[in-house]
Amino acid sequence: LDYQHVQVPFEITLWIMLASLAKIGFHLYNKLPSVVPESCLLIFVGLIMGGIIYGLNDKSPPVMDSDIFFLYLLPPIVLDAGYFMPSRPFFENIGTILLYAVVGTIWNVFGIGFSLYGICQVKAFHLQDVSLLHNLLFGSLIAAVDPVAVLAVFEEIHVNERLHILVFGESLLNDAVTVVLYKLFRSFCEMPAVKSVDVFAGVGKFFVVGLGGVLVGLTFGMTAAFTTRFTKDIRVIEPLFVFLYSYLSYLTAEMFHLSGIVAIIACAMGMKRYVEANISLKSHTTVKYFMKMWSSVSDTLIFIFLGVSTIGENHEWNWPYICFTVIFCLMWRALGVLVLTFFVNRFHVNTITSKDQFIIAYGGLRGAICFSLVFLLPDFHRKKLFIAATTVVILFTVFVQGMTIRPLVDLLAVKRKRESAPTVGEQIHIRFLDHLLAGIEDISGHWGQYYWKDKLEYFNSKYLQKILLREYDQPKSSIVLLYEKLERKHAIELAEAGQLGHAPSHPSLLHSGFLCSNNDRTVITDKKLEDTLNPDVLENIQEILARNLYRIRRTGPAYNRHTLPGETEPVEHAKEILILRHKSL
Amino acid sequence: LDYQHVQVPFEITLWIMLASLAKIGFHLYNKLPSVVPESCLLIFVGLIMGGIIYGLNDKSPPVMDSDIFFLYLLPPIVLDAGYFMPSRPFFENIGTILLYAVVGTIWNVFGIGFSLYGICQVKAFHLQDVSLLHNLLFGSLIAAVDPVAVLAVFEEIHVNERLHILVFGESLLNDAVTVVLYKLFRSFCEMPAVKSVDVFAGVGKFFVVGLGGVLVGLTFGMTAAFTTRFTKDIRVIEPLFVFLYSYLSYLTAEMFHLSGIVAIIACAMGMKRYVEANISLKSHTTVKYFMKMWSSVSDTLIFIFLGVSTIGENHEWNWPYICFTVIFCLMWRALGVLVLTFFVNRFHVNTITSKDQFIIAYGGLRGAICFSLVFLLPDFHRKKLFIAATTVVILFTVFVQGMTIRPLVDLLAVKRKRESAPTVGEQIHIRFLDHLLAGIEDISGHWGQYYWKDKLEYFNSKYLQKILLREYDQPKSSIVLLYEKLERKHAIELAEAGQLGHAPSHPSLLHSGFLCSNNDRTVITDKKLEDTLNPDVLENIQEILARNLYRIRRTGPAYNRHTLPGETEPVEHAKEILILRHKSL
Repeated sequence: LDYQHVQVPFEITLWIMLASLAKIGFHLYNKLPSVVPESCLLIFVGLIMGGIIYGLNDKSPPVMDSDIFFLYLLPPIVLDAGYFMPSRPFFENIGTILLYAVVGTIWNVFGIGFSLYGICQVKAFHLQDVSLLHNLLFGSLIAAVDPVAVLAVFEEIHVNERLHILVFGESLLNDAVTVVLYKLFRSFCEMPAVKSVDVFAGVGKFFVVGLGGVLVGLTFGMTAAFTTRFTKDIRVIEPLFVFLYSYLSYLTAEMFHLSGIVAIIACAMGMKRYVEANISLKSHTTVKYFMKMWSSVSDTLIFIFLGVSTIGENHEWNWPYICFTVIFCLMWRALGVLVLTFFVNRFHVNTITSKDQFIIAYGGLRGAICFSLVFLLPDFHRKKLFIAATTVVILFTVFVQGMTIRPLVDLLAVKRKRESAPTVGEQIHIRFLDHLLAGIEDISGHWGQYYWKDKLEYFNSKYLQKILLREYDQPKSSIVLLYEKLERKHAIELAEAGQLGHAPSHPSLLHSGFLCSNNDRTVITDKKLEDTLNPDVLENIQEILARNLYRIRRTGPAYNRHTLPGETEPVEHAKEILILRHKSL
Repeated sequence: LDYQHVQVPFEITLWIMLASLAKIGFHLYNKLPSVVPESCLLIFVGLIMGGIIYGLNDKSPPVMDSDIFFLYLLPPIVLDAGYFMPSRPFFENIGTILLYAVVGTIWNVFGIGFSLYGICQVKAFHLQDVSLLHNLLFGSLIAAVDPVAVLAVFEEIHVNERLHILVFGESLLNDAVTVVLYKLFRSFCEMPAVKSVDVFAGVGKFFVVGLGGVLVGLTFGMTAAFTTRFTKDIRVIEPLFVFLYSYLSYLTAEMFHLSGIVAIIACAMGMKRYVEANISLKSHTTVKYFMKMWSSVSDTLIFIFLGVSTIGENHEWNWPYICFTVIFCLMWRALGVLVLTFFVNRFHVNTITSKDQFIIAYGGLRGAICFSLVFLLPDFHRKKLFIAATTVVILFTVFVQGMTIRPLVDLLAVKRKRESAPTVGEQIHIRFLDHLLAGIEDISGHWGQYYWKDKLEYFNSKYLQKILLREYDQPKSSIVLLYEKLERKHAIELAEAGQLGHAPSHPSLLHSGFLCSNNDRTVITDKKLEDTLNPDVLENIQEILARNLYRIRRTGPAYNRHTLPGETEPVEHAKEILILRHKSL
């Protein structure tokens, strides 16, 4: 037996296998996942495993290595989040998200830090040796909402899209703030004296870390899109580039102490539309599937490791400090959300309701990022107290908040996600209004979001597409592509229903133009236009309507890690059309 | 800048990126890959990179770590080879393949070892310090044909399926022999005296290593199939199990000093049909795609590393030893193939022609396995000579033989692979003959391959399928599945051609039964049978014809790493049917 030789890959494979089998196990009993979030169950499995390891070896089980977490487990989840990010709601709420992510996180860090320092001054608690800087450092790592935990819970409760993107977007973008503050306070702790210059340098660093991350990400994203222009002859390695470039963007950003999370999100969002157009359909299926798979496995491993690492002798227990940490985390977050939302609502027509505010505050779950950061702390005599407090906060948020948020959402009757995707008619109107608003903003000289969006689209079609897309020479109107896609789906539906032979002959249908469905009329009108109008006029019309009609159909459904978007929805559309056609006869 | 922190994943990602970009580069110029095999070009890239590293650092570039090769680079290639192995030709020629792999390899090892020992006795060559055991050890690592090199060359020259499977199957299965002989001679080298008991133990080990590998592989394969029964609710992690279990089988076999290659092939071949039936279509696309992708990248990395590692100061040059190694490798292989084929041809009706024999002998390429093994040799004063000789043999076989084999195949007019997949009619006849021959063998009491195949199928449908397949309760005749698949394809074809609306109404076509195509008649007859016959009779008829008709269509095309089987072929079928239908009107 030569176990040493194969140990590393063998144990990695076994851990992944355990995680996958645990996932299968939960889903075998359909009722379990609907009551308890998967993250709780996985932490529970981890706790049991940790207990077994502790019982057998009589020493603490291995804690999750921070390097493994940040270099291998986190990137797949963030990549998946970025690649499947619903870009429309994200950019529509980018201001609010940034406010929560930047100002909200800073507020939480200082709020928690200072009030914990206040607690430390109470003599009865025996905490006077914890300095203000240490408290702030602890605050900087405990304040940040964790994207992995938020995703795991929010994708199961199906709140409305805006609420989801607000909490989830914040959890992703606060990484830049957390990185800066954490590193700043850590270096302050090691410095003999803190000068005001250092503080200003810290403020400047925010912008470097955040914007630097975006820049690195976009650079790699564009390179990825450009590379996929040339993969026509070797389709099999196409999916690889999506993963390689995203990962490189993350590593490069980390290397330069920028925000890796921001970089990988920028990379994924930047490359998506070009890569999708360049690679084959099967490659794209593979990309989507593998992203889902990897993120799902990473996420499972993180929660299991979190459970395993909790068991052991790393903890120093101090009731007041730990209890007050939990209380302050909840309190400052609630306060922060209230204050910030007050300002947000003053400047927006579409306000955030108080119910939504409650869920935003309540959904501020902590997770593995805090946990990894606390282990990365430099050694000092109260580190074990910090570890204990962090563990309790994570378990409290994941278990108590994670398990009660669903009943609360039901109880408060928080507005839910639309179950059905918007119809083609709605989409055309949304698109039309976008153009209209862009025009109004242009005329009135107001540089609002529609104006910038329009400029970006112009820049995209004028320059970027020419460089990044393989088949730019023969651009196909996306409405034509949509039509083809629907026809194909329809054909499959007919074939599967065994009606291909018995179907009514369509020529009459096509040529009569007598159709009751809005969808069909749009599609077929377009088809007829092509037959009757001359190419120039047609091109103009297509340009007005076209570009994104197909894309918007797909950004419709909200994010869910367990299903691939577009897996059910186009079929639904095809079915809808099928039914309408049948009715129309 | 914090490079240390991200070094490991960053460098791995960069190497993979380099490999992928090199691959893209070659395929940009269509003429290049048709003249020079990709493996040669990649080694060339590696040589250049090694030269650059050597020039810059003034020390030998890092050689490929044997552990990395055996644990991470080799498994994906072997898994891919096993999963896409055309099982019919493989099992039809299993006897011949085993003869070449076992007896042929032993013949080569001893032939090369003893004759090199003879050369060492010539005083003028200054090689008298190389003992017989060292020569045999060297023979054991240089004798084995390399599956990676063989695949890389043979998939480009498109020889007939039988010839391909003979060379390729041999290269895969000789791993068991190589492992045993290499380890045996290595331990003999370190022993003070070799007893005859040890020799007999070595012979016994053959069976343990080979059969043990098969057993480990099948165990994991069946477990994988069983696991995929329960993944209905979480489709995204389905593909994972295929990779995890295969890799575990490889690692487990390696751990017990069994043949990992044999294990992973047994695992992949064993699980394939059950996994395919259990997992969703998209999961299966992902599995196939990722397997291709990984093996393609591994293969690229291996050849690049081979080139990089060649440069440096690891070599001791001795003209006679190196030249005679190359000569003996060629000579003994040619002799071995001639002698073994003589015996094979005496017992088979379908003989191996002398042209085929030549290609089998000439296709005995050496590659990265020899290279990794020679670096794993225990340190002794002539190790560098062995490294030099191995490098020369590998470069000679890959460059000279690899580049000349295609012109030689053209010159000799070796029988090529059938371009078209067999028609449905042919397939039905093949299937029918199988059943007939199984019956004849059963009656005559001859336990031939058809008899065993029939027994295996019986065992499979009686026991295995019930345990391993999810939807065993409602088994669907594969001919019905085929029909559905073809109809779907046909529908897509029609939709893409814009003829869905204008197509002739099919009811008449379906009900008149007037069709000129053999294919269509089969399919539609089946459909009609379903309508007219009662279920019991229908089931019987289906059982006779059914089971594997669909599968055989897919095993048709020979192995090619750059395309996914079934990617083009079913479309071809669908088109064919489409054309025939149109003609029939």
